[in-house]
Amino acid sequence: MEISDVLISALEYIKKFRNQVFVIKLGGEVMLNEKVLNAVVQDIILLNCVNIKVVVLHGGGQEISDAMKKFGKTPEFVEGLRITDEETMDIVKMVLVGKINSKLVATINRHGGNAIGLSGESGKLFYAKKQKMKNNVDLGLVGDVTKVNADIVIDLIDKGCIPVISPVGYGEDGTSLNINADTAASKLATVLKANKLIFLAPVDGVLDRDGKLIERLTPVEVKELIKSGVARGGMIPKLEACLYAIEHGVKSAHIIKSKKHAIIEEVFTEKGIGTMMIREEEFRSEKLMSFCNEG
Amino acid sequence: MEISDVLISALEYIKKFRNQVFVIKLGGEVMLNEKVLNAVVQDIILLNCVNIKVVVLHGGGQEISDAMKKFGKTPEFVEGLRITDEETMDIVKMVLVGKINSKLVATINRHGGNAIGLSGESGKLFYAKKQKMKNNVDLGLVGDVTKVNADIVIDLIDKGCIPVISPVGYGEDGTSLNINADTAASKLATVLKANKLIFLAPVDGVLDRDGKLIERLTPVEVKELIKSGVARGGMIPKLEACLYAIEHGVKSAHIIKSKKHAIIEEVFTEKGIGTMMIREEEFRSEKLMSFCNEG
Amino acid sequence: MEISDVLISALEYIKKFRNQVFVIKLGGEVMLNEKVLNAVVQDIILLNCVNIKVVVLHGGGQEISDAMKKFGKTPEFVEGLRITDEETMDIVKMVLVGKINSKLVATINRHGGNAIGLSGESGKLFYAKKQKMKNNVDLGLVGDVTKVNADIVIDLIDKGCIPVISPVGYGEDGTSLNINADTAASKLATVLKANKLIFLAPVDGVLDRDGKLIERLTPVEVKELIKSGVARGGMIPKLEACLYAIEHGVKSAHIIKSKKHAIIEEVFTEKGIGTMMIREEEFRSEKLMSFCNEG
Amino acid sequence: MEISDVLISALEYIKKFRNQVFVIKLGGEVMLNEKVLNAVVQDIILLNCVNIKVVVLHGGGQEISDAMKKFGKTPEFVEGLRITDEETMDIVKMVLVGKINSKLVATINRHGGNAIGLSGESGKLFYAKKQKMKNNVDLGLVGDVTKVNADIVIDLIDKGCIPVISPVGYGEDGTSLNINADTAASKLATVLKANKLIFLAPVDGVLDRDGKLIERLTPVEVKELIKSGVARGGMIPKLEACLYAIEHGVKSAHIIKSKKHAIIEEVFTEKGIGTMMIREEEFRSEKLMSFCNEG
Amino acid sequence: MEISDVLISALEYIKKFRNQVFVIKLGGEVMLNEKVLNAVVQDIILLNCVNIKVVVLHGGGQEISDAMKKFGKTPEFVEGLRITDEETMDIVKMVLVGKINSKLVATINRHGGNAIGLSGESGKLFYAKKQKMKNNVDLGLVGDVTKVNADIVIDLIDKGCIPVISPVGYGEDGTSLNINADTAASKLATVLKANKLIFLAPVDGVLDRDGKLIERLTPVEVKELIKSGVARGGMIPKLEACLYAIEHGVKSAHIIKSKKHAIIEEVFTEKGIGTMMIREEEFRSEKLMSFCNEG
Amino acid sequence: MEISDVLISALEYIKKFRNQVFVIKLGGEVMLNEKVLNAVVQDIILLNCVNIKVVVLHGGGQEISDAMKKFGKTPEFVEGLRITDEETMDIVKMVLVGKINSKLVATINRHGGNAIGLSGESGKLFYAKKQKMKNNVDLGLVGDVTKVNADIVIDLIDKGCIPVISPVGYGEDGTSLNINADTAASKLATVLKANKLIFLAPVDGVLDRDGKLIERLTPVEVKELIKSGVARGGMIPKLEACLYAIEHGVKSAHIIKSKKHAIIEEVFTEKGIGTMMIREEEFRSEKLMSFCNEG
Repeated sequence: MEISDVLISALEYIKKFRNQVFVIKLGGEVMLNEKVLNAVVQDIILLNCVNIKVVVLHGGGQEISDAMKKFGKTPEFVEGLRITDEETMDIVKMVLVGKINSKLVATINRHGGNAIGLSGESGKLFYAKKQKMKNNVDLGLVGDVTKVNADIVIDLIDKGCIPVISPVGYGEDGTSLNINADTAASKLATVLKANKLIFLAPVDGVLDRDGKLIERLTPVEVKELIKSGVARGGMIPKLEACLYAIEHGVKSAHIIKSKKHAIIEEVFTEKGIGTMMIREEEFRSEKLMSFCNEG
Repeated sequence: MEISDVLISALEYIKKFRNQVFVIKLGGEVMLNEKVLNAVVQDIILLNCVNIKVVVLHGGGQEISDAMKKFGKTPEFVEGLRITDEETMDIVKMVLVGKINSKLVATINRHGGNAIGLSGESGKLFYAKKQKMKNNVDLGLVGDVTKVNADIVIDLIDKGCIPVISPVGYGEDGTSLNINADTAASKLATVLKANKLIFLAPVDGVLDRDGKLIERLTPVEVKELIKSGVARGGMIPKLEACLYAIEHGVKSAHIIKSKKHAIIEEVFTEKGIGTMMIREEEFRSEKLMSFCNEG
Repeated sequence: MEISDVLISALEYIKKFRNQVFVIKLGGEVMLNEKVLNAVVQDIILLNCVNIKVVVLHGGGQEISDAMKKFGKTPEFVEGLRITDEETMDIVKMVLVGKINSKLVATINRHGGNAIGLSGESGKLFYAKKQKMKNNVDLGLVGDVTKVNADIVIDLIDKGCIPVISPVGYGEDGTSLNINADTAASKLATVLKANKLIFLAPVDGVLDRDGKLIERLTPVEVKELIKSGVARGGMIPKLEACLYAIEHGVKSAHIIKSKKHAIIEEVFTEKGIGTMMIREEEFRSEKLMSFCNEG
Repeated sequence: MEISDVLISALEYIKKFRNQVFVIKLGGEVMLNEKVLNAVVQDIILLNCVNIKVVVLHGGGQEISDAMKKFGKTPEFVEGLRITDEETMDIVKMVLVGKINSKLVATINRHGGNAIGLSGESGKLFYAKKQKMKNNVDLGLVGDVTKVNADIVIDLIDKGCIPVISPVGYGEDGTSLNINADTAASKLATVLKANKLIFLAPVDGVLDRDGKLIERLTPVEVKELIKSGVARGGMIPKLEACLYAIEHGVKSAHIIKSKKHAIIEEVFTEKGIGTMMIREEEFRSEKLMSFCNEG
Repeated sequence: MEISDVLISALEYIKKFRNQVFVIKLGGEVMLNEKVLNAVVQDIILLNCVNIKVVVLHGGGQEISDAMKKFGKTPEFVEGLRITDEETMDIVKMVLVGKINSKLVATINRHGGNAIGLSGESGKLFYAKKQKMKNNVDLGLVGDVTKVNADIVIDLIDKGCIPVISPVGYGEDGTSLNINADTAASKLATVLKANKLIFLAPVDGVLDRDGKLIERLTPVEVKELIKSGVARGGMIPKLEACLYAIEHGVKSAHIIKSKKHAIIEEVFTEKGIGTMMIREEEFRSEKLMSFCNEG
Repeated sequence: MEISDVLISALEYIKKFRNQVFVIKLGGEVMLNEKVLNAVVQDIILLNCVNIKVVVLHGGGQEISDAMKKFGKTPEFVEGLRITDEETMDIVKMVLVGKINSKLVATINRHGGNAIGLSGESGKLFYAKKQKMKNNVDLGLVGDVTKVNADIVIDLIDKGCIPVISPVGYGEDGTSLNINADTAASKLATVLKANKLIFLAPVDGVLDRDGKLIERLTPVEVKELIKSGVARGGMIPKLEACLYAIEHGVKSAHIIKSKKHAIIEEVFTEKGIGTMMIREEEFRSEKLMSFCNEG
């Protein structure tokens, strides 16, 4: 395929997505492989160059657990939520804001972007409130995002910057709270009226009962996957975050593998590379268009 | 080559040219082949989508001569300049502004651009003054551009529109003057501080004594080509227009073939497809960089 | 009358119309008499100088027919609409955009205005759709304006420029369509929330059964004139265009003779010079005011 | 002369003066005749309507003296300067700001303008410093303008308002100072880069040795008039104010009679009505142009 | 108390009131004592410096009466309203605009503020209409404010200036009208959506039946005070002005003594110094908050 | 002292410093005492409320050393510079950006400010380059600030936000570098054309040979203090940072104790609380003014 053919085929998507907002959540695994990290960052820069307004949110569970061990603490979880005492919260912020965010900012800047790192506490970006106990266990400084104050993020993307955001919540009394990055990404995408919410994850996408990749999903199908037990473990909060987003105005939500140029394949080709969730009615209209194009 | 490889390789150029102005002169031959026209317009839209500010100027000598014949007039030239009486000037404007410009605007708009057609008289864009006689022949309403008033063009490109301009001059007393499109493009590029001036022509580029395409040229080499007689005919005014532009601040000037996706190949690949003219010192620094990249 | 008396008497109108939009449709006959053309253009410049935002639309039926004959084609009409095959459409655009528009732009600029010529295709200003057959005759490329996209026009008048627009429609698939200039002017005036829509025509205004000029008309009276057969021929589409405009928010619509300074006489004197159409209720309030002023 | 002829003849001046600043100083005599006042105000409104930015300064010596007498004080002058003790200064401000300014503002507003009355103390518009003694007489609160802070005036004229300014100075320690209105107008005109400075005075203009009106004057001629004693009394400070203005960038300075529509006659006709001062070189180029126009 | 304690205690109010509008009405008595005037002006400057947008309105009844006597006229009142013939109106304007306003502007400017003096006629700030007769007495040029056109005031406070406004009304036919300063202040505060309306008066505040200062009042209590006859004389229009303001959106209205730094004490301390009127519901919520703070 | 006296005395400084930039460097010791931290933050909020544009930079040497020990690493220094291997650099960022910055942001936000935390890498705020060896020791990832790119900081302070910045440098190849916070603050203050650079430190200020606080210093005296050995240890880089700032346009530099409301005492009182450095000539003019005020 010649360069001009590729560019012209990409042109359709470039026109469609110009000036749209994409919220991209990078799983912690992206940070652990330098090559993947560089390729992902190149993809982000490309989106930025064709006028897509990219906002990056990152996770970092594994690195937090590693750091806790170094500090002599044992990570504990209840239903996938980390029990977070004050000391742990300090470690969470040090790893997320001080290490991972910093690394992402430096990498994006080195590739020619203009990244600005932000903790979710800055400008009270993620207001959060302490979660109630789970199964009679006090989770400590774990919070739910109750309000997103995206002014600073909007300013930055309107100037062409790439905000890189750590999932730390601003608690009611100024306390830092440990918040779920998937949920935070979903709520932020909603407030920013994003066109796409993309999760980079350590899996190929959503798999069916037979372990085969599902390319398209509608909300009804997502709910069925959860109910039927086909979707399990860490996939469930991701699916719920996707559901929330597309039910609150985001056009599509994607779960794709954290690998080289996966974002480009997903965004600039019709087939994509992972799983895309869209509303029922858009699914139908898209099928129809695709049928017409073939005919 | 995979789509992501192509896009990532293009990314370097996309970053380099964002927000830059490209003035593209389309030879009349582009209009005569619907396929070429469509492909050229797609290239222009692509440039527009990656934030390059494209200004289009067009020619149309052949079609003017054809129309003159229909009106029962015989085209006459002195040193390549059309003898232009009042009736001829009316035909010139009718063909350029009424036919070619209109066709370009409609084609760009059909492909999703926002084209605005302008005659060089609008807003006194091209101030011109009547040429003195050539070899004791009065050329009539033929003019030289003496001043470019590009306010309206700047407004349009800053809004993301694509101005399509016909080479008609605004004479001192309001008379329309027939001006050379190559020269007009060159002066406009200079005033707009364009990064590139690109001529689409019916040839592959500038050829050497043996008929082989020359990929890079410096001003000194251009002057030598003209002086030595290797460059001839219609190539001479194009080379002079290129010279003028790069000696007045335009970064590079290109002469490439009017064919499918030639613009993309020229702009987004290192090798390019036609002839590129740059200043001596940039030529050297570019060679050095290319050497470093290989090492 | 002394200069100061005249200026002070005009002051009332200058105050009333400042920052208002006037859409002025020039009939093709304006172009055929250099003296009239110059005087009309002076009037337009004067309006422009006292902060009236003038938009000019022009016709050109006669010149189109003349050009067709030169090209060996016979003009044909069905119910006043020109049968327009592709070749004819090319001639239409060449005459309207390439000749008449260009002439108007140059004349306005020569008198010190800043005119910008636009085809109705630029920026998809006049979206149009092909007309259905009339009496089983396919009219070819004849269209109805379905949407007016006036952004570029608004930008220009806000900057003090005078847009000069040719009545060419942008068809759904990018095809150029021949549209009626009177209707186009009326729809544009509506979208621009114009204060006045003025038609310059080869007649003194609307005449009554006895051939006497009618100075004021209300919509009801207009409808009666059409129904009764007193208004005939080319006057009918003009009256309908006026009706459409004043029923969609334009304050008044005028039909006046294409002669020296007719616009000034109509705009800056109480009596005016041709026929003015206003809504019933404004007619009454105006009468009342005039009565009070006399008392 | 028909209305259209007058308007078209005025058009040349309207084009020339649009967006220019005119500073108009009204002598106190304007206020004493209701008819003259109304006509002068209409002229000002007309200038405002054709985009001339008018700033009004007023005097009021006679009314100040009258008020002083009512308060039982005897006006005293040294070389034309009023001896101003504190009580007198209170009367000065009461008459200028409280009575004359207020009257002007109300009259302009009643005629449809948007006048804003300002004392020269507001926004420290006229910084002034106490004059040294004259002939061993302490003049009291009489000051010279040392700096003009025209920000507020510029804001107002840019919004289309008409500032009406009383000649009161802001002294170094906040004391109000009695300043000369002619000088203040001249300095304000300079700071505003005014096109014209116009004095309305109780005389026809500057007269020559034989009492005949001089239509045009150059700086050299003005200096000669003063030196030779032909100009006398109150005319001298006016001439000096004119000189200062045109030597500091104001295009022309005018002294005309305070009568009905004198401003319009002076501004919109070639002959004018009073005396106009311009720089030597402009005088010559103007004569030349006038000669060419006649030829 | 140390400076830092005071500033930190004031910080709460500074944060609360930043960017809010305060309309402050100065009674004529403020002008009669230089020390009080200077202290009041310092307070105003302080408010201005902590980003409170201050608008000053002033009265001046006593000085008007004094000036009338100097002019040999006897002040007459009907129900507290001055009978105002034309000559009186001239004196009113001379005293208010020419003397008091001027003095306030100079004093504010001397203390480092940027004051702009305005008569209520400027920009038709206070439209007014003549009052009907009272008890068969024609009050003459006495008016009621019917509309407030605050554009110029808003421009000024947004630029950080301090407008100083004299209570003169612009009558329907351009006649100046004598308007009540308290009412004007109240209407202006409403239009400006002011946070506070503050009256400086010659009394400590509103007193109860026993002559004790009432610190807080609700609208119901105000009405009761008037009905019961406890409030009398000049206090009644002030109370009514306060009522109007808080019933039309102003957060609180204050009546405080015209003395040194009374404004600061009222604005920056919890207890305040005079009487504050707020709506019932805010009264309750404030009490609650105060209770919580103590607990 | 009454509240109004204090506020009025502060007013002079509030007027003087409005819209000025203050760069405040907080030593790590501020973070170690919750009471001090809260009081310092209140001071910062107060400055913000009176329109001073505050930029906060923080250190954190002690906490970094503590964290290193937890991670089993021994802090090593050469001439006061920390030897920084990659692992140490990770710890530096985690402590500075992840812990201290986060804590400051949360505290400021809790007190009603709008703080935005930034690492010096974001937006390439602090470009840095690796330091050469010191005494044949490779310091590792220790850098010198070579360029300050303050765009994002300027945007934030112009919007009223309070940027809180960690001293991390963006190395040429994207590597994070450990930079000196005092120097970074000094360079940032210079680029921002700050009025004041304030260091909060664990000492009362600069002490003389006898251990007595020096209230005012000029550059000459500073150099003498260093040369004579009176200034020692950590005081030397602070003094050099102050010198650099005032020699590059910052009006004054202050070294004050990290204690309750020290900032307020230093900024809003004439005496201040610590040591202030100003240029010779300003020192003299200030002495003069103070003398005049006393007289």
